[in-house]
Amino acid sequence: MGKTRLEAFSDGVLAIIITIMVLELKVPHSSDLAVLQPLLPVFLSYLLSFIYIGIYWNNHHHMLHTVREVTGGILWANLHLLFWLSLIPFATGWLGENHFAAAPAALYGFVLLMAAVAYWILAHVIICAQGSGSLLKKAIGPDWKGYGSVLLYAAAMGLAFVSAWLACAIYVLVAILWLVPDTRIERVLRARGEQSGSAP
Amino acid sequence: MGKTRLEAFSDGVLAIIITIMVLELKVPHSSDLAVLQPLLPVFLSYLLSFIYIGIYWNNHHHMLHTVREVTGGILWANLHLLFWLSLIPFATGWLGENHFAAAPAALYGFVLLMAAVAYWILAHVIICAQGSGSLLKKAIGPDWKGYGSVLLYAAAMGLAFVSAWLACAIYVLVAILWLVPDTRIERVLRARGEQSGSAP
Amino acid sequence: MGKTRLEAFSDGVLAIIITIMVLELKVPHSSDLAVLQPLLPVFLSYLLSFIYIGIYWNNHHHMLHTVREVTGGILWANLHLLFWLSLIPFATGWLGENHFAAAPAALYGFVLLMAAVAYWILAHVIICAQGSGSLLKKAIGPDWKGYGSVLLYAAAMGLAFVSAWLACAIYVLVAILWLVPDTRIERVLRARGEQSGSAP
Amino acid sequence: MGKTRLEAFSDGVLAIIITIMVLELKVPHSSDLAVLQPLLPVFLSYLLSFIYIGIYWNNHHHMLHTVREVTGGILWANLHLLFWLSLIPFATGWLGENHFAAAPAALYGFVLLMAAVAYWILAHVIICAQGSGSLLKKAIGPDWKGYGSVLLYAAAMGLAFVSAWLACAIYVLVAILWLVPDTRIERVLRARGEQSGSAP
Repeated sequence: MGKTRLEAFSDGVLAIIITIMVLELKVPHSSDLAVLQPLLPVFLSYLLSFIYIGIYWNNHHHMLHTVREVTGGILWANLHLLFWLSLIPFATGWLGENHFAAAPAALYGFVLLMAAVAYWILAHVIICAQGSGSLLKKAIGPDWKGYGSVLLYAAAMGLAFVSAWLACAIYVLVAILWLVPDTRIERVLRARGEQSGSAP
Repeated sequence: MGKTRLEAFSDGVLAIIITIMVLELKVPHSSDLAVLQPLLPVFLSYLLSFIYIGIYWNNHHHMLHTVREVTGGILWANLHLLFWLSLIPFATGWLGENHFAAAPAALYGFVLLMAAVAYWILAHVIICAQGSGSLLKKAIGPDWKGYGSVLLYAAAMGLAFVSAWLACAIYVLVAILWLVPDTRIERVLRARGEQSGSAP
Repeated sequence: MGKTRLEAFSDGVLAIIITIMVLELKVPHSSDLAVLQPLLPVFLSYLLSFIYIGIYWNNHHHMLHTVREVTGGILWANLHLLFWLSLIPFATGWLGENHFAAAPAALYGFVLLMAAVAYWILAHVIICAQGSGSLLKKAIGPDWKGYGSVLLYAAAMGLAFVSAWLACAIYVLVAILWLVPDTRIERVLRARGEQSGSAP
Repeated sequence: MGKTRLEAFSDGVLAIIITIMVLELKVPHSSDLAVLQPLLPVFLSYLLSFIYIGIYWNNHHHMLHTVREVTGGILWANLHLLFWLSLIPFATGWLGENHFAAAPAALYGFVLLMAAVAYWILAHVIICAQGSGSLLKKAIGPDWKGYGSVLLYAAAMGLAFVSAWLACAIYVLVAILWLVPDTRIERVLRARGEQSGSAP
């Protein structure tokens, strides 16, 4: 079984998820510049989710580089990941519509948490299929970043009921964590002739 | 005629179908956690349909592995399958919106039934094109699962007017039937050097 | 310049057009079976447009088989075709919403007419790029079907104001014309080792 | 890292952006031909944006021809470009809904300006990755058209508050500038055996 269609299908779903979110930016009926102001939280939540989907697409891209043969387990673990990512537009819309209120901020963290867990499962299904000497296992390493993100999401979910802004700040922080050192990993792995991929 | 574009087009349509369904999860205007409760049936129907589209994508993927040359008949049988699958978001939305009422549950079964029939037609158009010694024919075998699913869908359509929950339980059962032994078939076929593919 | 991305982009746009149309089938709020009846014209117009997009995808697929090198002219002629096809969901929605009234039936014909003209332009840009001995030119031949369709669309646009049903019957007739002999052309061309492709 | 998935993902996002815009053409409830008249500005803004996305897709297609290896920087610069392009449907909808009013016309220019800047960044990230003797650098040259477009967008943003129609005329002018000489560049570059690509 080739991985071309798995990649094509995932690319399609991610491309639609990323573009569907922009539909939450509803076209205002007035032509006044001031009507854009209440859209600002919707825009910011869109920006954050766009970056998250970008990170997932980027890492998914790297992870599948290490895959030779697609098993039934990998297909379903991949669909499971896409399922949680497909809920991001809903969580984003609720967050933006309610100007970063407590419950939407907690739900946003929950969806990110489940997506991270689904990514972890996908990675481990691939590692099992590759057997000992798995390229992906070496690339991920002890995966501090993966486990740390899950802890931060969980913490943010609780903190959302204290301060939704604090929770959102944590989501931004995790996104930055995944954006910044990505090039470092890439460079290290290129030197070793390996490919990277770990869960945001 | 190559099959690359047939696969790409089908992947595109399936990716959009699976993602469009999530738009039925309308963003609530209140930020209260309690507003998520009435969304639960919508979420559950989305989950069920996501799994069904996943099963179809998975099996479609396997089935096209056995195809060398795409004929006009295969193109149209494939479009016919995509037509019925494209009605799943509508049936799902109606089922979720009305909290698993009788008529929506019956319609849901009808769309699944027609999709299964369309899948059967596609399989047999491919088998005819492959002639005697068809790889797909050997892989499908007597196709108990395919015929059984159609009977179960038909039964559920009738039972929906007695109990919509019973009908939905049958849809869940059929989905599980198709999820569970898929790996078994795959393993058997890999041993024989063949590829599988049958109608859910 | 390769044609892979041209095909991929066209497939993406056509897949989205075909799937967006189903959104016009709005989920009813009541769970009564009777609410499906007013949706019947929307469903029928969706079915007709699905078949038209299917025919276009099918013929586009064949036509690009004859293309070796993609020029700027081919890129823009292709985008021009996609532009008119992208208006089909709007024309379909208006036709279905108003239960096959006069003006929507005429507009539907206008969009089909412009799409046929755009297809003709694309075919001729490709023929020009291929120079004398163009494979596509031989495959299309005198193109009676292409010119006939355009005349039938134009006639239907006028007749729509007499009887919208007559106009729609003509659209169904043209679709059948393009569906039926397609396999014949395909078989003839395969015998000659050529590839077909003409405007619906 | 291959560029196939980068192209596939970009094609997917651009295909969805171009098709989502047509959803702003809301299906009217009356079947009178006269209801199409208020839709004219929506149609015209759709047409303009369709052409802009077409230009971007076309140039993106050319630019990636010069890329051999995709770095993390290229991935993110590409996502940054897609982010601004994904806001075009919103800007288009606002422009069309308000019949080319001042603030929407200025915002439209702002989104085009940011997309042009993002395109410029992507081009320069690619040029840096290619090192000295970059194929893309030679193809772009002094890039008068790129810088000129940015100046024209900025001017149009200011002029929008004097006359929204003047601003829109400038957007049309820039689109024509990018449409017309594209074939010239292509021909020149083909002669030199190079590939083109610059920011609209």
